[in-house]
Parts: sequence; structure tokens; C-alpha cells
Amino acid sequence: MKIQLENITPSEIENRSMEIISQELVQLGITLNKEHAPVIKRAIHASADFEYAQNLYFSENVITQALSLLKNGACIVTDTKMAFSGINKKALYNYNCKIYNFIDDKDVALAAKQNNTTRSAACIDKAADIKEPVIFVTGNAPTALIRIYELYKEGIINPGLVIGVPVGFVNVVQAKELIIQTDIPCIISRGRKGGSNIAAAICNALLYML
Amino acid sequence: MKIQLENITPSEIENRSMEIISQELVQLGITLNKEHAPVIKRAIHASADFEYAQNLYFSENVITQALSLLKNGACIVTDTKMAFSGINKKALYNYNCKIYNFIDDKDVALAAKQNNTTRSAACIDKAADIKEPVIFVTGNAPTALIRIYELYKEGIINPGLVIGVPVGFVNVVQAKELIIQTDIPCIISRGRKGGSNIAAAICNALLYML
Repeated sequence: MKIQLENITPSEIENRSMEIISQELVQLGITLNKEHAPVIKRAIHASADFEYAQNLYFSENVITQALSLLKNGACIVTDTKMAFSGINKKALYNYNCKIYNFIDDKDVALAAKQNNTTRSAACIDKAADIKEPVIFVTGNAPTALIRIYELYKEGIINPGLVIGVPVGFVNVVQAKELIIQTDIPCIISRGRKGGSNIAAAICNALLYML
Repeated sequence: MKIQLENITPSEIENRSMEIISQELVQLGITLNKEHAPVIKRAIHASADFEYAQNLYFSENVITQALSLLKNGACIVTDTKMAFSGINKKALYNYNCKIYNFIDDKDVALAAKQNNTTRSAACIDKAADIKEPVIFVTGNAPTALIRIYELYKEGIINPGLVIGVPVGFVNVVQAKELIIQTDIPCIISRGRKGGSNIAAAICNALLYML
């Protein structure tokens, strides 16, 4: 079989990909909400999975809130090193935002062991001490989302935004619905799907909208 | 709506997830090749996408070859920092394997600019100097796979294994088929799907099989 490569320069690849995604959405009969479209398209771009055109939940006015947070130097807390790695630091630091991942911290490992919880959940407790407005970016651990819910309900944290897209089979669907039921501004991939790649893609989409 | 969380300890979550995946594969009428099953299940675990039960291509005898490479201290080269972050370093270093990601290297940026190619492709050229057997792990850049193909055809590199699971819309399908057509041992996600999360998941599945 002769394989035919498309002749394209590196700088054109992303635009061409986005064009293809837009065309195929039309073919699928899907019209995206204009405000949400850049986020949805970047999630599809990161996964080649058009289910993200249907499963992303956006709380009311969340894009405006997210952009305002990022413009004013919010602090991003991620649950995995993969999501941390995937977020565009240059774009982030342009706006004086900070980004933390506490998963390898010794106090986090200790707290997780003591409380028989995951290190991802213990990271949320640690993040409660952050003074700046916090954007939680969760691509892996539903236990992190559950802890965000608990600490919010107890009045201990008040997240500026939750990007809640853990992937998986145990308590993932439920953890996402818990967040949706609160008043926390959020972008959530309903159902089982998500992942660190999707978490980073959503975060970057917001940064590129600025 | 009352949300009911499953009561489960952190250490049980992964086993429970794998159980659910196995059960649902049965319900879908899918029987996995026994040797490939751990890799396929971990790709599904990383994405909640059962398409990975169908789209993963394994060259003949590749699992045995991969495990032998890892046991003997191979050198992994990844195309993204996300895949690099997601691969279990502890497991890797237990077998004296090395792992590199050249994407931020200055000589790579320069070479990419000079040759009007992507930095990911330029990373492959840089990897040609590695003396140990190399496992290429590509979760993002089809241009990296194309460069692997070219350098292999020119006799400049002879990869021990290619885990080729870039995601996307431009030259992704073709780049994967190029590798499949060679004699390089490979694990490839046919079609558009893949990603750094899938790349890391496959790599980790192999490490956990040792």
C-alpha cells in the first residue's frame, strides 16, 4: 500500500487540524456554543475523540470567570505531573500565574498515609493554604475532586475554578456530578472520560483565548 | 439528586477499575489476545475509551521483545514532556533503563528551524547518537514517527521498539501505517487516536509485566 503524506509545514499543522475538527463537527450536525468552542475543539484536538463535543459541562459564565482569573495571576494546582507538564508555562507566566503540583511532596505522602486517602486528595488539603485565587486542574484523581467538594462544603476552600476531568471507572462519574451540584465555577467532562491530556488542553485553550 | 460514592480504599481503586474493564470487555463480546491484554487494558484505563480494544496493533512477538529490552536496560526516548512525566521512573530505574526527552534542548530547536521541521522530528535525529537499544515512545508528533521511518530506511537508526500512538488529524494515520509497514517491532494505535497518556500507559503496562 502506498502511503500518501499531506505536504504541510510544522506551523500549519495546528490550524489545519482545527479546520478538520470544525468541518467534521458540521458533518456531525453539531453546533458548538461560541464561547465554549475553543475549549471543546482543543479537547477534541488532544484526543481525536468527538465525544468531547457532547460531554463537557460548563457552569454559567465560566469562560469569563476563568479568563478573569488567569489575567489576574491565579494559582493553578494540578493533580498530576502529566497535567503539570502539558500546561503551557510560557503563556501562564506571561500573566503572572503560578502552577503547583504537590504530588511528590513528603508532607503530602505522610498525610495521605495517616488519613488513608490518596496523595491526590492530600494535595487539595495542602492547597487550602494558598492565598491567591486557585484554579484546580484535575485530570486523574476523582478523590481530588471529592476532597475539593468536602473542603468547599466545610467552608475551608473557595475555588475560583475547577477544571474537573479525571478519567476512570471508580467514583469518577459521581465525583464530577458532586462538583456540578455546587456553585463552584467549573468545566467538567461528564461521564468516565477525561485525563491529564484533556486537563492540560482545556487549561491551554483558556490561556490562548486571552 | 443524591450521589452515592463507592466505598473503596485507595489501594483497591486500580484493581477494581481493571475488574470493571474486564467485565465490560466480556459484555462487549471482545476477547483479548492474552499477551496483549495488559497493554490494552491499561490504555483503556488511561482513557475510558474501549476503542483501544480494537485499534492497537502489535507486531509479531513484540511483547517478548519489549520485555527483553526493558530487562536489559534500554533507553526510552519520548516526544513530549507529558509522556516523559507519565512513565513510571521507579519501575524504569529498577531495570537500569534510561529515559530522555530532548524537546527543550537548544540544539534541537536550532536543527528544527534550520530544516523547517518540528522539534519532535529533530529529537529523533538527536537520538540517533544513542548507543543503547532505543525504545521510541511517541504520543504526540506524527512528524517524529515519520522521521523514525526515514532514518530507519536510510540505515541510520535501528529502533528496538516503537510505541507509536500520536493523536491527531494531519498525517497521523499515515505516519502510523508507515511504521507498521517496516520490520521495526512496534505497538501502534491505528487511526487518529492516541496521546501522551496512552503512550505512558503502554510503557507502564510493559514495565508492570516484568
